[in-house]
Amino acid sequence: MIIELQNNISTQDKEAILNKIESLSYAFTEVITQTGHYVVGKNGIELDKAQFDTLGGIKHLHYGLSNYKLVSRQWKTQATKIQLNNNSIIQDGGFSIIAGPCAIESEDQIETIIKHLADNNITMMRGGIFKPRTSPYSFQGLGLEGLKQLHNVASSKGIGIISEVMDISQIEEMYDYVSAFQIGARNSQNYNLLKALGKTNKPILLKRGISSTLDELLNSAEHIYSSGNEQIILCERGIRTYENAYRNTFDLNAVPVLKEKTHLPIIVDPSHGIGISRHIESMALAGVMAGADGILLEVHENPAQALSDGQQSIDFKTAESLYRKLSATYDLRSSFEA
Amino acid sequence: MIIELQNNISTQDKEAILNKIESLSYAFTEVITQTGHYVVGKNGIELDKAQFDTLGGIKHLHYGLSNYKLVSRQWKTQATKIQLNNNSIIQDGGFSIIAGPCAIESEDQIETIIKHLADNNITMMRGGIFKPRTSPYSFQGLGLEGLKQLHNVASSKGIGIISEVMDISQIEEMYDYVSAFQIGARNSQNYNLLKALGKTNKPILLKRGISSTLDELLNSAEHIYSSGNEQIILCERGIRTYENAYRNTFDLNAVPVLKEKTHLPIIVDPSHGIGISRHIESMALAGVMAGADGILLEVHENPAQALSDGQQSIDFKTAESLYRKLSATYDLRSSFEA
Amino acid sequence: MIIELQNNISTQDKEAILNKIESLSYAFTEVITQTGHYVVGKNGIELDKAQFDTLGGIKHLHYGLSNYKLVSRQWKTQATKIQLNNNSIIQDGGFSIIAGPCAIESEDQIETIIKHLADNNITMMRGGIFKPRTSPYSFQGLGLEGLKQLHNVASSKGIGIISEVMDISQIEEMYDYVSAFQIGARNSQNYNLLKALGKTNKPILLKRGISSTLDELLNSAEHIYSSGNEQIILCERGIRTYENAYRNTFDLNAVPVLKEKTHLPIIVDPSHGIGISRHIESMALAGVMAGADGILLEVHENPAQALSDGQQSIDFKTAESLYRKLSATYDLRSSFEA
Amino acid sequence: MIIELQNNISTQDKEAILNKIESLSYAFTEVITQTGHYVVGKNGIELDKAQFDTLGGIKHLHYGLSNYKLVSRQWKTQATKIQLNNNSIIQDGGFSIIAGPCAIESEDQIETIIKHLADNNITMMRGGIFKPRTSPYSFQGLGLEGLKQLHNVASSKGIGIISEVMDISQIEEMYDYVSAFQIGARNSQNYNLLKALGKTNKPILLKRGISSTLDELLNSAEHIYSSGNEQIILCERGIRTYENAYRNTFDLNAVPVLKEKTHLPIIVDPSHGIGISRHIESMALAGVMAGADGILLEVHENPAQALSDGQQSIDFKTAESLYRKLSATYDLRSSFEA
Repeated sequence: MIIELQNNISTQDKEAILNKIESLSYAFTEVITQTGHYVVGKNGIELDKAQFDTLGGIKHLHYGLSNYKLVSRQWKTQATKIQLNNNSIIQDGGFSIIAGPCAIESEDQIETIIKHLADNNITMMRGGIFKPRTSPYSFQGLGLEGLKQLHNVASSKGIGIISEVMDISQIEEMYDYVSAFQIGARNSQNYNLLKALGKTNKPILLKRGISSTLDELLNSAEHIYSSGNEQIILCERGIRTYENAYRNTFDLNAVPVLKEKTHLPIIVDPSHGIGISRHIESMALAGVMAGADGILLEVHENPAQALSDGQQSIDFKTAESLYRKLSATYDLRSSFEA
Repeated sequence: MIIELQNNISTQDKEAILNKIESLSYAFTEVITQTGHYVVGKNGIELDKAQFDTLGGIKHLHYGLSNYKLVSRQWKTQATKIQLNNNSIIQDGGFSIIAGPCAIESEDQIETIIKHLADNNITMMRGGIFKPRTSPYSFQGLGLEGLKQLHNVASSKGIGIISEVMDISQIEEMYDYVSAFQIGARNSQNYNLLKALGKTNKPILLKRGISSTLDELLNSAEHIYSSGNEQIILCERGIRTYENAYRNTFDLNAVPVLKEKTHLPIIVDPSHGIGISRHIESMALAGVMAGADGILLEVHENPAQALSDGQQSIDFKTAESLYRKLSATYDLRSSFEA
Repeated sequence: MIIELQNNISTQDKEAILNKIESLSYAFTEVITQTGHYVVGKNGIELDKAQFDTLGGIKHLHYGLSNYKLVSRQWKTQATKIQLNNNSIIQDGGFSIIAGPCAIESEDQIETIIKHLADNNITMMRGGIFKPRTSPYSFQGLGLEGLKQLHNVASSKGIGIISEVMDISQIEEMYDYVSAFQIGARNSQNYNLLKALGKTNKPILLKRGISSTLDELLNSAEHIYSSGNEQIILCERGIRTYENAYRNTFDLNAVPVLKEKTHLPIIVDPSHGIGISRHIESMALAGVMAGADGILLEVHENPAQALSDGQQSIDFKTAESLYRKLSATYDLRSSFEA
Repeated sequence: MIIELQNNISTQDKEAILNKIESLSYAFTEVITQTGHYVVGKNGIELDKAQFDTLGGIKHLHYGLSNYKLVSRQWKTQATKIQLNNNSIIQDGGFSIIAGPCAIESEDQIETIIKHLADNNITMMRGGIFKPRTSPYSFQGLGLEGLKQLHNVASSKGIGIISEVMDISQIEEMYDYVSAFQIGARNSQNYNLLKALGKTNKPILLKRGISSTLDELLNSAEHIYSSGNEQIILCERGIRTYENAYRNTFDLNAVPVLKEKTHLPIIVDPSHGIGISRHIESMALAGVMAGADGILLEVHENPAQALSDGQQSIDFKTAESLYRKLSATYDLRSSFEA
């Protein structure tokens, strides 16, 4: 159950509501987000609406929801639109491209990549500066200094940066230099990190964990949302299965099913989804037709020399051809929906 | 290793070759297919080419192949084109539609479905008459009589039937009434059945097992091919993973990767791939963009009343809209390849 | 629902029951097994018991069962005891050893293995003569002649043979030479084969499919049982997961959970379950403690030279040590249950 | 490659070694642990030993290792023994019991549980105070105050506490009150947390991620070890598969395989491994026979009332019976190894 409170609810009214709930021995959480104020109950128990009839300050009561609540489309039927601080938009029915290297590797690379993006009118860039690597002896990223340099160059071209945050302590450090924080697959159930990001007002790109169910992904989003931040983009990036002919199994089923379950936008990451650069085009175009609202794409000026994920990055020429095909495919999809 | 023999090889030459191989203690299998004659060696051991220099009757020697041999694109780079006895074609770079109900249920249904297909210029129909069901108490199909009725109506409209064969004894019974035999996911490693079908000259639609690797699927095809029948269509139909928000996880990664590994055509089955009728359109269109050569689609005149798989069947109106979208999407894909 | 009929039910009484059911539009299957006579309804619909109050010939009505019926422990609470034609027994609370090579390879081997088994008082032997192999070019087994030779030697020592049947046509051929038929993992949902075996009166060792759920395994058993044969042994042999440090993931959870769900005995196959010969002892002993009623063990006189599965076979010396440890572990387990 | 330095290496000698490595363009990491000093190279590249022949301060050079290095048994063949600050020991060939509730719920519970443990001579207690929960609206644990209370009571009985740490900021807060830190499955690849724990000198109980390969688990341990802390206990706790008849699939194969790959002790958690309280005994005993060095067991004074994981907790009476059986089973296992 969600009790949606009036935004200007009086202290007295709110206390009356909370007292009523407590008197019914009902466990609840008070949630204040960027646009709303709620009392959310645990799954599985629903209070009798009649109990609240005489109380003031209540906008709506929502019943019968999934075990995730505020991110559910049952509760909020209108799609959530994400706007970055450089005015880039990710939203239901759109198709946004976020491109860039797995990891930022050098100053030279920054100039080259930003030029490529600007030349192709791409306004959102991915690029890791803190890299979670299976082995502690692999390249761990350039760190904060790399991000600052990247931000200098990118912002001069109006490009927003989306970069992975691995620890709470990095949120404040990175804050001024990113347009959105990314949560990587390995941290998709690091709830302390999710809650801390829920207290910021920057959009969050939340990747599905390597074996997360859709239900778990939506509950991870709920951790962010219920901490206050409504600006969440979900990302399907391949799941772990028994098949080892590819790095991951790209689960495009997730796209239409998530769009039905939640009001948050869904993008796809075919680079991780198949992990083989010569097949990324096929899977990216398939992603458009599956209904994704955008794409996260690993693009590198020289994939063969990349310090990480070279085998799943595409070069500039391939990327430019793909951008055009994505656009034509999106136009066709839009014509179907008309 | 494959030793490709000349089609008109003399008995003497062949014996000389086999004797040479035996003298080298090399395990081999003689294979005669519709268009070729081969001696195929076990994986992992390669003979010295020089040993065969002086022997007659050899067309080519092929080395360094995968553990599947004759279905490998390393060996045969030209794509295999499948032509049904009603002249329908399934081939690399094309896009063929095979539609129809999960199971044939009644004579009335047959008339209705065939009319729908003919009206939409669809020349290949799916429809089970022997149904593998998890429970022995579920509907098991109409059996052979149903197939004969279906064949009567379908052939009058030039429509070819593709129907699942579950046992060797059914091959001969069904032979005159089908244009292609289907191997279902549960029998994808029923090697005796595969070999028996390899001795027929009807095309075989081979579905990937619910947890088959691509390697296993190609080896199942090799069982058919090495028994003599080159006419094999592979079908991705969803795999089993931990995710239970859908019936299966539709593995579109398999499409580009299989097309690289084998010369056989690849089609997709989004009905089983996602198993939720309202999401089949998205996944079907995604399948086109992933590069599939065709689609297997469950269409039913009244899905809510279907005796099996109603939840993943689409009705005629939805199907007609989808056929148009598939066509437009295929045209766009073709324009990319130009 | 199961309607259990009296064994001596009159034709009139039976027809009255069937007529009543048909009048209620209830789909049903008549089942005659070795010891019982039943009318079994489809899952999900239960008739009103009162409808049958006045009818004769009914022993019991069973309600509220799982989607498998006759193999369910909800219906038959007493455990089923399997007795082979050489008087070997596999039953709930016992611990039976079935040992032998993956495949029978030669006459010499037969003598050696049978001696090993007889010396160790093992009365049940495994040994494939028809081998399902992923590649058509791998060793396919000695075939029927091998089985006859094996039977000659084994029967002289009182040892019963359990061997895999891959096709319906082999049932009759093999019948006189085996004490039980094995269904391999790849054929665990080959329902035509299951039903044909259900019409024999030899025990069936049914292996879990490589990605079968317990529910599917029990439904496969139901196919056999509802065709008439109650003598079924279930076998957990490892499932397919993402982990590739071993051949399969040995799912010992299945043992206590299956024992609760069904009255059929459950054995385990650690040879396939882990697939690494030096770790089979640990997993075999773990299997005893998990509650298995027996074990299927790949034992070879010289694993390094085995034509199949050598990497997961143990030699005689290792096997003898293991038999003693299995026995001691089983004794300890039995003392816990006392 | 690992270059093991002499503990008293001179600054000059160390610099000569690092200079030599840099001159060879070899990426490396300097590692100082509780007992050693190393230079560790990235996987896949091995330097020529001869290059180091003339340099001083080198104890050993280790080559040809797995992609994890310092936790590998190839490098360190002697098993690592973990000693908690209350003198409890977890080590190869032993069998340690760690028992307690999923989460600490109240002061009353603390008294009850500690008494139960003390009465049964169990010196290590599990008990969560910060609980990672899929839903943000579920019980999140008592927090630090709960831990302090628990520590007061436990330490008076000589019982050491093992409790999950979810965030770097909690390490210092919890430090004085725990004998070992636990990393939960969801944080098993939270590398920042692993590295921070690697800088402490408390033992770390590292749970396998819900879909971690053994290789990933060992690399997670390598993150801790290479940050300085050698005191790591690995824990198998069930993995995610397609089977949903149980909460997880308990992967006992991991036990013998991990023991071969690493010198760290391995314990098992049957409570999460099967997730059904009435089957925990079977799987716990199976775990002993699989070769585990200990067990993590969810025990609750009243499972039906537990605030989390009640369905997989056992009550005191069941636990006491299990402790005796574990002990007898361990004795039998030890007699086999003798």
